Amino acid sequence: MNEFDLIAKYFAPLAGPEGLKLKDDAAHFSPPAGFDVVLTKDTMVEAVHFPAGRYGSEVAERLLRVNLSDLAAKGATPRGYLLSIAWPKNVDHVHMQDFANGLKSSNEKFKISLWGGDTVAIDGPAVFTATLVGTMPEGLSVTRSGARPGHDIYLTGYLGKGYFGLKGLSKQHVKNDLFYKPAPRLELRTIIRTWASASIDVSDGFAADISHLAETSSVSAVIETDELYWPDDIQKWLANDSGRLNILLTHGDDYEVLFTAHPDHRDEIQKAAQTLDFKVQLIGRCGLGQGVTITSEGHPLAFEQTGYKHFQ
Amino acid sequence: MNEFDLIAKYFAPLAGPEGLKLKDDAAHFSPPAGFDVVLTKDTMVEAVHFPAGRYGSEVAERLLRVNLSDLAAKGATPRGYLLSIAWPKNVDHVHMQDFANGLKSSNEKFKISLWGGDTVAIDGPAVFTATLVGTMPEGLSVTRSGARPGHDIYLTGYLGKGYFGLKGLSKQHVKNDLFYKPAPRLELRTIIRTWASASIDVSDGFAADISHLAETSSVSAVIETDELYWPDDIQKWLANDSGRLNILLTHGDDYEVLFTAHPDHRDEIQKAAQTLDFKVQLIGRCGLGQGVTITSEGHPLAFEQTGYKHFQ
Repeated sequence: MNEFDLIAKYFAPLAGPEGLKLKDDAAHFSPPAGFDVVLTKDTMVEAVHFPAGRYGSEVAERLLRVNLSDLAAKGATPRGYLLSIAWPKNVDHVHMQDFANGLKSSNEKFKISLWGGDTVAIDGPAVFTATLVGTMPEGLSVTRSGARPGHDIYLTGYLGKGYFGLKGLSKQHVKNDLFYKPAPRLELRTIIRTWASASIDVSDGFAADISHLAETSSVSAVIETDELYWPDDIQKWLANDSGRLNILLTHGDDYEVLFTAHPDHRDEIQKAAQTLDFKVQLIGRCGLGQGVTITSEGHPLAFEQTGYKHFQ
Repeated sequence: MNEFDLIAKYFAPLAGPEGLKLKDDAAHFSPPAGFDVVLTKDTMVEAVHFPAGRYGSEVAERLLRVNLSDLAAKGATPRGYLLSIAWPKNVDHVHMQDFANGLKSSNEKFKISLWGGDTVAIDGPAVFTATLVGTMPEGLSVTRSGARPGHDIYLTGYLGKGYFGLKGLSKQHVKNDLFYKPAPRLELRTIIRTWASASIDVSDGFAADISHLAETSSVSAVIETDELYWPDDIQKWLANDSGRLNILLTHGDDYEVLFTAHPDHRDEIQKAAQTLDFKVQLIGRCGLGQGVTITSEGHPLAFEQTGYKHFQ
């Protein structure tokens, strides 16, 4: 089966109208009137971003979800995606079918469709790249650079899902499920669009990501971890060893959203979050100057490394 | 140097305003009023699509140009791109600088800019993926499926540049130059937008690509090769061996545009091409039914394989 047959069999059924049945040179997207386009792109390499040989639906779901998290952090509405796949030459077609099943499941859940891309062979690890396309009402845009001294800092949900997705912890925090199916915070886009002055998704590690945001906005930040919300099982796990907090603050892959907002909007933000039945927690404050201070019981925490880095 | 430093040093200087200095989760693009968005994505794998170890400006230029060719075939105006790079772990930074130089050169030539993407490490061959974003006046769209029986078939320029880019031939057709710097036919977009009923870029191989177009449009096609234009050096090379025509009809990587148009527009198309001082040649006709016949001196040519295929 050559790449045209593969595309026709596994991927064309997932195409939206923008994808022209995956039979064209390019996708054609007419954004709704009054909307801008938001684009993000992420790559996953076998044995770096997912275990060797695990080419199936889980990887497909994770690939889309981590990209959707970037759109969620910007308050954008996802529309569709282009996909580039480099398959190892001897890959079994059962993996391709399973991979396509993972895409299908995410398409349905997040109301997106496949618009294009390409499939090539590689003599090496599999490489999956997705470009997600979303829309945002014209004139609205939430970047990492809009935080100002005095703005509040919020975290959606809680940290640790990335870490426990690898290690497991309890019935609530299940290994693999959490890792392969992070939940992009798309339901919070109205809050982010309306009140966020700056935002970032928590992917590299909370400590690294708040540093990225503060640096890009040219503000300092103080975070108070004593007030951080944790589910019971994580709270217990943390209580056993004071060093464990550092792990959850630096591990990454949480796919929550960190955002800042003017303090005037505190009540509106909490009310909107309650309406959505979703936890959006005030965890700190931006200040003049630069640098991020993360405190526990009144003392600043020290970090050897704030998040995962390639090429270190 | 970690990936954040790499991006800041080599890639951030290439970013357009849509790329937010490559410091954000996503790019933000406001298409001009009255324009749709056209997207295409292509991957190049080391030792498959370019020689092993050749990571520099040439690969960067080729990556952008082959994607730009897809936009050109659709009549779109290129705007910017997202880039995913999987570098082998031990890659020398001199290659990254050189790669960035190649992007810069294409940015200037084609009036595009870098909007985002990511950089990861791979224990294997380098993998480069670009997503090109272009625009098209709202309501206009040239797909592969619009050809109808009776429509003319046109080819821009001539075939053989892909083949002689690998083999070399003469001062005009220089090895490597032609391979790494194919010329996307963006200058013809007005012709394509205005008169093309269907179009495709010649990348897989002329015989394969006319077959894709005919199949997607549900028409048959007859091509008469005796009338094909060739520059003198290629004409001489062809005259030496009657089997050589088949090579140029199937090799691919020509990055010309094959398009169809209603015969009423013959004069307008030729006049527009002359104004642009560009060769746009009438080479065949669509008919009822299906199948592609490529003839030479009145006889149909036979092809063992019509173009390059992965996973064969």
